[in-house]
Amino acid sequence: MSGYRYYQKASKAYYSHPHLSKLLVVFTLSGGGGLLAVSDNSPLSAAYADAGQRDITKKKVVVLGTGWAGTSFLKSLTHPSYEVQVVSPRNYFAFTPLLPSVTNGTVEARSIVEPIRNIVRKKKFDAQFREAECYKIDTQNKKVHCRSQKTNLGGVEEFTVDYDYLVIAMGARSNTFNTPGVLEHAHFLKEIEDAQRIRRTVIDCFERASLPSVSEDERKRILHFVVVGGGPTGVEFSAELHDFVNEDLAKLYPTLKKHVKITLLEASDHILNMFDKRITAFAEQKFHRDGINLKVGSMVTKVTATEISTKEIATGETVNTPYGMVVWSTGIGTRPVVMDFMKQIGQTNRRVLATDEWLRVEGSDCIYALGDCATINQRKVMEDISVIFNKADKNNTGRLKVDDFKEVINDICERYPQVEIHLKKRQLKDFVHLMKHSHGDDEFNIEKFKSSLSEVDSQMKNLPATAQVAAQQGTYLADCFNRMEICEKYPEGPLRFRGAGRHRFRPFRYKHFGQFAPLGGEQTAAQLPGDWISIGQSTQWLWYSVYASKLVSWRTRMLVISDWGRRFIFGRDSSRI
Amino acid sequence: MSGYRYYQKASKAYYSHPHLSKLLVVFTLSGGGGLLAVSDNSPLSAAYADAGQRDITKKKVVVLGTGWAGTSFLKSLTHPSYEVQVVSPRNYFAFTPLLPSVTNGTVEARSIVEPIRNIVRKKKFDAQFREAECYKIDTQNKKVHCRSQKTNLGGVEEFTVDYDYLVIAMGARSNTFNTPGVLEHAHFLKEIEDAQRIRRTVIDCFERASLPSVSEDERKRILHFVVVGGGPTGVEFSAELHDFVNEDLAKLYPTLKKHVKITLLEASDHILNMFDKRITAFAEQKFHRDGINLKVGSMVTKVTATEISTKEIATGETVNTPYGMVVWSTGIGTRPVVMDFMKQIGQTNRRVLATDEWLRVEGSDCIYALGDCATINQRKVMEDISVIFNKADKNNTGRLKVDDFKEVINDICERYPQVEIHLKKRQLKDFVHLMKHSHGDDEFNIEKFKSSLSEVDSQMKNLPATAQVAAQQGTYLADCFNRMEICEKYPEGPLRFRGAGRHRFRPFRYKHFGQFAPLGGEQTAAQLPGDWISIGQSTQWLWYSVYASKLVSWRTRMLVISDWGRRFIFGRDSSRI
Repeated sequence: MSGYRYYQKASKAYYSHPHLSKLLVVFTLSGGGGLLAVSDNSPLSAAYADAGQRDITKKKVVVLGTGWAGTSFLKSLTHPSYEVQVVSPRNYFAFTPLLPSVTNGTVEARSIVEPIRNIVRKKKFDAQFREAECYKIDTQNKKVHCRSQKTNLGGVEEFTVDYDYLVIAMGARSNTFNTPGVLEHAHFLKEIEDAQRIRRTVIDCFERASLPSVSEDERKRILHFVVVGGGPTGVEFSAELHDFVNEDLAKLYPTLKKHVKITLLEASDHILNMFDKRITAFAEQKFHRDGINLKVGSMVTKVTATEISTKEIATGETVNTPYGMVVWSTGIGTRPVVMDFMKQIGQTNRRVLATDEWLRVEGSDCIYALGDCATINQRKVMEDISVIFNKADKNNTGRLKVDDFKEVINDICERYPQVEIHLKKRQLKDFVHLMKHSHGDDEFNIEKFKSSLSEVDSQMKNLPATAQVAAQQGTYLADCFNRMEICEKYPEGPLRFRGAGRHRFRPFRYKHFGQFAPLGGEQTAAQLPGDWISIGQSTQWLWYSVYASKLVSWRTRMLVISDWGRRFIFGRDSSRI
Repeated sequence: MSGYRYYQKASKAYYSHPHLSKLLVVFTLSGGGGLLAVSDNSPLSAAYADAGQRDITKKKVVVLGTGWAGTSFLKSLTHPSYEVQVVSPRNYFAFTPLLPSVTNGTVEARSIVEPIRNIVRKKKFDAQFREAECYKIDTQNKKVHCRSQKTNLGGVEEFTVDYDYLVIAMGARSNTFNTPGVLEHAHFLKEIEDAQRIRRTVIDCFERASLPSVSEDERKRILHFVVVGGGPTGVEFSAELHDFVNEDLAKLYPTLKKHVKITLLEASDHILNMFDKRITAFAEQKFHRDGINLKVGSMVTKVTATEISTKEIATGETVNTPYGMVVWSTGIGTRPVVMDFMKQIGQTNRRVLATDEWLRVEGSDCIYALGDCATINQRKVMEDISVIFNKADKNNTGRLKVDDFKEVINDICERYPQVEIHLKKRQLKDFVHLMKHSHGDDEFNIEKFKSSLSEVDSQMKNLPATAQVAAQQGTYLADCFNRMEICEKYPEGPLRFRGAGRHRFRPFRYKHFGQFAPLGGEQTAAQLPGDWISIGQSTQWLWYSVYASKLVSWRTRMLVISDWGRRFIFGRDSSRI
């Protein structure tokens, strides 16, 4: 994804010339290619568009979802031998990292969305979009059942779509951990509508608290904003809300400012757990200075219409706190339709849909899953240790020299990425050094081989549920689809240790380009590859640059930048629309 | 209102140098003052803001509504002897002439609104805003009863506000003429939310019609858009919808374009009745060329979820037509709370709240009403003819010479604006000429006086329910309030013919600056003062200029212009948010 390349360039330039950081916005604007570029109408797509004239030799690909994974797959798929149908309840792609900015009007909702049909219509192959929800996947008949519900246009409309290949990219739902009252009373922050609803509710709270008949206690309650979950989204939302209140609302509701309270609840000991400790410490100090009430070690047990109950983990004590608005941002769960699908294919004892390293759903042949709805079930080296040994031991001697398995080293490293992580962590040059380091010997039997690799699998980690992972998976899978024919003939993947020949494709490998945590007041923390840490106002400018360059199209890019500019000049709008 | 002055300048420049029209945008941008300019936060408003510290010697002014009338009143009220409370269910002012543009995304909703609190906080007197609906006016106790309904924040909250002066500027509701099914199934186009809902529904219709399971007949039904009412709003909306479909949606839904049908229903013989015939003819021809199905002489009798029934006035025949979306834009009706108030003050046999020429509600002392919720009950000359005669006939001779009533001519013309209209229409220089013209005589008795003025009252016309009227009334009334003290001492109004002395203020006089009718495809018709007619693309540029200059603040002005620019570059967005 070209956006990432610009991110890399930007971070390099930033570290060699920190004073240049403010220029980066201009640089990324003029040069940054986005995930999706919008060009002219293609006459081809119009010609193909009539659903009646399908080419039966073409493989039917059905994509479920138009989030990061689905959209980047659709965008990168170019081979004309497919016929694609995209099914999603939303006819647009949303640039979700800017959702917290939408909650208070730093950025407008419409600035961060791009119509999927703008992408579909430029495809050189037959591509269709259907605004509907998939409610059932029928693997036996290779069909997905879809439903569109519009009360104003004749109610429920149901239809099925056949597939040869199915790409599941439906994302996840917010996880309430079955906490009572959360679904009914809390706001989430996953969809555009959620962000718009939060924005309206914040204004509602201020307007309501301004009424003359409201008592002082009730006023305090209404103006108590509670954020549950100290991850990047919860932290960014708290910070943005704090800025909105202090920079804009304080002027319009001068008598209310003193009553406003923002509380951030986190069950573990620290916020921003996935970040470096320095970032966590900085964020916690900044929130303390800003007057954001940070409560760690506090688990939500119940939410009612006016109170939120928490259990303090240290003391076991339960506290009931009156609130005006709760935003729930604690983690993700599996959607019911995916759960149902998992039962069908025998993944009954899992919580998340599992795929192999090629993003193919385990227990299924032509179904792929990517993004937040799936997780890669990385194969352990130890599971395959004997077959690997046998594959290297061509003469079946039961003993291997280092030179013997030089041939399969690349395949091992490619098939089991944990090996490379292990090598890097132990600061070993390569696989051969690992073997030698373990035994100081040049020859092994299977036992020695096992023991030298015994720690490797502990390096295995699930990928985080982020936009970055989903987008990379989408591009990867589309690339596999584009080269399907060639790779069938000339496989380019690693050796099949348990079978003959090679895998068709290289397995998916995630490249981490770092992560931002905006902290409000034009301060951002960033954790970049190679354990680089950057905190402060210049990081905020890096954040502006990266996000501007990664936006989906020139249209959204222009809109978001003009939104930022407008906020600097006029502040945020407080109209309740 | 400075916007109007720029309009005047613009129209003058336009007619002396038609080729300059495109430059007007720049001119109005750099020079045009808006209705409301947003400046810095005033420390005074913050100091006054605490509701507890009211000055009891100040007169309490309560303003109901934040539309054109209420906002321009609030904006122009400057005298520090008042204490103002504004009550409205909407905490923003919306620039309603651009609502049709919001329905299809030519302009964003947020670009045409300005928070009322931005105006309130700049006031040098104590001013408060309450987001609530007034549901009852209690004239006996001089109180208004208000209600705020937020299901998410503790339900209904009720309170009362005391007034010394009450300014009713609540606008009107859409009038369904009790046609069955309209409230349930039709869209209106009065509020920001209406426009946003229409926009979503248009996209819903296209997405729904794209589903593979929808039959051809159903597809045609869903894509049939019906607009009821051939006034400026209905015509502009039809034109904008036509442009949206043809310029943007046709590219994204290439197979659907052939099924789209837009029907405009009008009960009378022509659309745009209030405009010059040349404009009507041009509009009807343009719609015909564009393929907009224009049905005049067609009255809607019923609306169901899928069908609209019309009665053809010429033939009496009833036709049922399947539709996907109906937009109802036929006229305005009185709000229930205003109806209730009219009963209280004895205006039982009227359909609209009546005021005198000073915008004071008839039958009430300290209550004013302006904008769409009220109508001025202009006094007839004939009702007062004897007292006028007696006032002029100082010596009670029963006969008057022309010279005798020269003193009261100005007062007559000011008190009864129909006199001037009559003179202009008859192309008479002044009142004296009218007298002479009627009788060729220099001396009159009461009978002759009556007969020479007998036709004058036929010139009386109710003012149209437009933004222009409402805004002028708001400014006028604020001006009266600002000069209340001075004018009590030194009245500047016309002679009281039925009493002694003079009226405090000059009566309200409406100045018509013309009206636009955008017809789509960058074509606009305009009827300007002095019966000037202008139609075409350059009028569209005049429209852009005038609307840009009349916008409420520099913020909204910048936003609307950037929305226009964005539409030219990227087209309109079709995401369903």
